[in-house]
Formats: sequence, structure tokens, C-alpha cells
Amino acid sequence: MNMAESMKKRSEDIEQILRGYLPKEEGQQKEIFTAFNYSLMAGGKRIRPMIMQETYRMFRKDSSISFVEPFMAAIEMIHTYSLVHDDLPAMDNDQYRRGKLTTHAKFGHAMGILAGDALLNAAFETAFKSFELLDDITDLAKYKELSSRIHRALQILATNAGVYGMIGGQVVDVQNDGKEINKEQLDFIYDLKTGALLRASFLVGAVLAGATKEQLDVVEIIANNVGLAFQIQDDVLDVTSTLEVLGKPIHSDEKNNKTTYVTLYGIDKSKDLVSSLSQKALELLSSLQLEDEFMHKLIEFLITREK
Amino acid sequence: MNMAESMKKRSEDIEQILRGYLPKEEGQQKEIFTAFNYSLMAGGKRIRPMIMQETYRMFRKDSSISFVEPFMAAIEMIHTYSLVHDDLPAMDNDQYRRGKLTTHAKFGHAMGILAGDALLNAAFETAFKSFELLDDITDLAKYKELSSRIHRALQILATNAGVYGMIGGQVVDVQNDGKEINKEQLDFIYDLKTGALLRASFLVGAVLAGATKEQLDVVEIIANNVGLAFQIQDDVLDVTSTLEVLGKPIHSDEKNNKTTYVTLYGIDKSKDLVSSLSQKALELLSSLQLEDEFMHKLIEFLITREK
Repeated sequence: MNMAESMKKRSEDIEQILRGYLPKEEGQQKEIFTAFNYSLMAGGKRIRPMIMQETYRMFRKDSSISFVEPFMAAIEMIHTYSLVHDDLPAMDNDQYRRGKLTTHAKFGHAMGILAGDALLNAAFETAFKSFELLDDITDLAKYKELSSRIHRALQILATNAGVYGMIGGQVVDVQNDGKEINKEQLDFIYDLKTGALLRASFLVGAVLAGATKEQLDVVEIIANNVGLAFQIQDDVLDVTSTLEVLGKPIHSDEKNNKTTYVTLYGIDKSKDLVSSLSQKALELLSSLQLEDEFMHKLIEFLITREK
Repeated sequence: MNMAESMKKRSEDIEQILRGYLPKEEGQQKEIFTAFNYSLMAGGKRIRPMIMQETYRMFRKDSSISFVEPFMAAIEMIHTYSLVHDDLPAMDNDQYRRGKLTTHAKFGHAMGILAGDALLNAAFETAFKSFELLDDITDLAKYKELSSRIHRALQILATNAGVYGMIGGQVVDVQNDGKEINKEQLDFIYDLKTGALLRASFLVGAVLAGATKEQLDVVEIIANNVGLAFQIQDDVLDVTSTLEVLGKPIHSDEKNNKTTYVTLYGIDKSKDLVSSLSQKALELLSSLQLEDEFMHKLIEFLITREK
């Protein structure tokens, strides 16, 4: 299999996991379940749970219990809720995403707000299912170790999704809509709005698998490099791609008067930055001396992707 | 002190606890912190954290560690986010609440959405601070016991706030806006939209304090009775109170063509139901044989309140 095929297979496996956490579309509140499932299963590359799963696999030594699946579903729910609320009329007012009607366009404005709320709440509700995996552990020291990994993973998830993470980045982005911003502001937005959930994906996987403090420090730098490279690549594609390949209008940053790495540094310098950031990430990954073949390819894919 | 004074004192103590969990209003995303704090500190009786704190106190035997404060703040954040999103133009479109501008009216529509999101996320982020209280526990059996109490409390909180709880009730309420509904639908809405968070307040307090399964079953029935009585009292006050006392327009249910217990059964029967539900709750409370003086008065207050 080439990388595109491998990723497609992984995405499908992740969607199978997600389906295990979907509410049944029944009962008086059926409409919210339908909107919930529509939003979560509307496609996408499932990059965040993919990173989390692979980081978990790389660091995992004890194969008896797999804690990562509830968290994989949780991070995809958080990512999805952020898209649902971003698409609302008071925000970006988008009617289509990936060729499908956005949640509020299909289910109405009120249901768009409530479906986003439901996804965010369900993310934590789902992550808490990891507690149930502790029930059968009789070795108290092991219980404490695994319980505290879950606790740290929950804290990482919540912090990176909240006002010091994704929401904080979104706020500064909304505030500066249509305004010229400086590099410090742009980096703040990139680091939080897109970077925070990618960082959480790497770190939650590593923490749940029992990575050491030293390993976590390296993983965090890898995540930050990948996150920024990913976002700069987005800026580049907006200028160099086509509508057909990208699946959404190009030159949208220019039209919306957005400051990006391309407007600040030009295309060539931006491409160089993507290369050097990802090179650094790949070097650090190798330094961990783990079975990192898929992660290596995944990082390369993320920064050389054409859409 | 009479009950009004006691409750005022407790509300102030709870607001002091809340202040300990507020974000500092600084940094690039300062506006979301300001909107967050404005929303959370905009007044209210703080009934949910008050119930939680008192239930915890009633059942608590071991006074060494207090786990309840992060959860008290969490439930008030969830309650507040639900109000902030309910007030949005696509929902109830309210400009004022308790005589102050609603969050979106003061900070703009986008910030209203984001502030609600931020409060919901922060609720879990705050509840997770209870994990830190486990750090110093060296007795492994005790660690497991307290850790599992926190886990159950988190599950109760998330379930009652989500699609099978508060959000589920809100969805059915929104769907039936302006339509006549039957008693089954009305009870569904009351049980979830208002009842769920009150139920969570009682149960989280009891679970964190280590109440037994049998005790929890009784607490849940008390909570359900109090929740329904509280909601029917709301219906009664909308007809019998005045704008001055209630602080909001009366006869709003009639104007909005809302089905309520008063429209289904009339005022007298509704008042009788409030009495019998709360009588049942108070009898069950006594049957628990705890120091329940304040809780007894609190329940009486909730169902005899005039606003």
C-alpha cells in the first residue's frame, strides 16, 4: 500500500471506532442525535485521532488494555464541534463544507448551536468511558498509574481545547477578522487555533501509553513543529493550488484580507519554512528510537499534502 | 439568621469559590476572559452549587480532603453556558437577564457563542482540578476509592449536561416552540432541561462524599421531586407573581403559547402538586437520618420561593 492507501485504511478504521460512540437516532430528542451523527460522520481525514493512535502505539509497552479509543473519538468530536460552530452565521457563515451542507444549513441555526454544544459535551462524556477500563484492575499500584495517565490526558485535552488553547486562538482570529496583524499575533492564532488540538493529539497518545517526561518534552516540540508546518502549508496551498484539487476556493486569504505566512514572507520563504520545520520534527522523531515508520510518513504527508 | 440571609451568605461564599477559578483578564485573548467572567459573575442564586455543597456536607465522613469545590464551580459554569447560548438570537434572542445585558448583547454574537463554548469546556477543565487533590495520597486503596468517586462524579456531570440530559431537554423544547404539547412531552422537557442539572448537583455531592448505593437511590428520588416541584413552581409564578417581584415579565408562558402544568391542570392543582412533591422529598430526606436542617430549609425555599 502507498501512503494514500494506508491513510485511507486508517481513516476507515477510525470511523469504525467513531461509530461505536454514536448515539442511537431514537427518542424524543432524535433530531439532535441525527445532527450529531451527521456532523461527526461528514468525512475528513481524521488526522487528529490518527496521530493520537499512532503516538500511543509507538510508546505503548503493555498491550493488555487499550485506553486510547475513547480519547480518539473525543478529539474528533472536539474538532467537529469547532467546525460546526465556526460555520454558524454569526461566525464564518458557511453553507457547505467538504461538498455537504453544514450542520446549521441542514438542521437550522438553533440546532447548529445545540449540535456543537452536544459534540463538545459528548467529547468529555466519551473520554470518561476510559474509566470503565480501570474497573477490572485489582493491582492497586497499576490502578494508580493508569488512573493518573487518564487524568493527565483529560487535562491536556481540556486545556488545549479551551480558552488557553483552541478557543483562545479562535477568539483572536475573530477579533482580527479583515485586519492586518503582525507575526506575533499570527503565530499566536496558529499555535492555538490549529496547533493546540494537534498538540493534544500527540501528547494524549504519548501520556496514555506511559511515555516518560523526557519523551513528552520531545513529543511536544515535534507536535509544535508539525502544527506550524501544517498551517503554513495551508497558507501556501491557498495560493498555489486549484479549486479542483483543494476542493474549496483558492485565494480566499487574499480575498478576506487575511495575514498569512505567504503575505508576510512570500511563497518561497514559506515553503522553505515548511521544509525546515518538518525536517526538525522528523529528526526529533528519529531521536526517540521507536518504530516510527508510519508516523514518519504521516508527518511527511501532512506537510507535502496538496489539499 | 433567617433562611433568606443564610442563603445570601452561602451564595457569597460560593461566589468566592467561583472567583478562585476565573481566568485572569490579560493576554491576546483577553476579551474571552472578560466575557467569561462577566457571564459567570452576573448574579443568580447559585442554587446548583449550593445543593451540591450541602449534599456533600451531609454525607461526608472523612474531613481530610474537600473534592467538591471544583465540581461546584463546574456545575455553575455549565448552567451559565446554557443561559448564554439560550439567550442567543437564534435561540430565545434575549437582550437582558437579571437586569444586565446578556453576553451576546454586550460582547457581540460571535463572542456569545465562543463564551458559551468556553464556559462548557472550562467546566470540565475545572472539575479536573480535583485530580490534583489525589496527588498527596500514598495509601493506594484510598487513592482508588477517591479516584473512582471522582470518575463517577464526572460521568454524572457529563451525562446530565449532554444529549441525554440538559441538551436533550433543550432540543425538545426548541422543537416544540409555540406548539401545544402533551404531558409526556412536558415531563420529558422538565426532567431534562431543568431537572438534569439539579439531579447532577445532588448526586455529584453525594457520590464525592462516599454515599452508599442505597443512599444514592434515595437522593435521586429527592432530586427528581425537587426538580419537578421547582419547575411547576416556575409555571405558577409566571401566572401569580408580578413583574416587580419576579424581576421578569409575567404571563410570558401564555404569550408564547407555552404548555405548562398551569395550562394543563390549572393553578390550584399545580400548587397542590408542588406541595405533594416537596413533601415527598422532605420525607425521604428525613429518612436518611443525616444533619439535614439547611437542606430541609433549602428545599422548602425552592418550592415556596416567590421569584
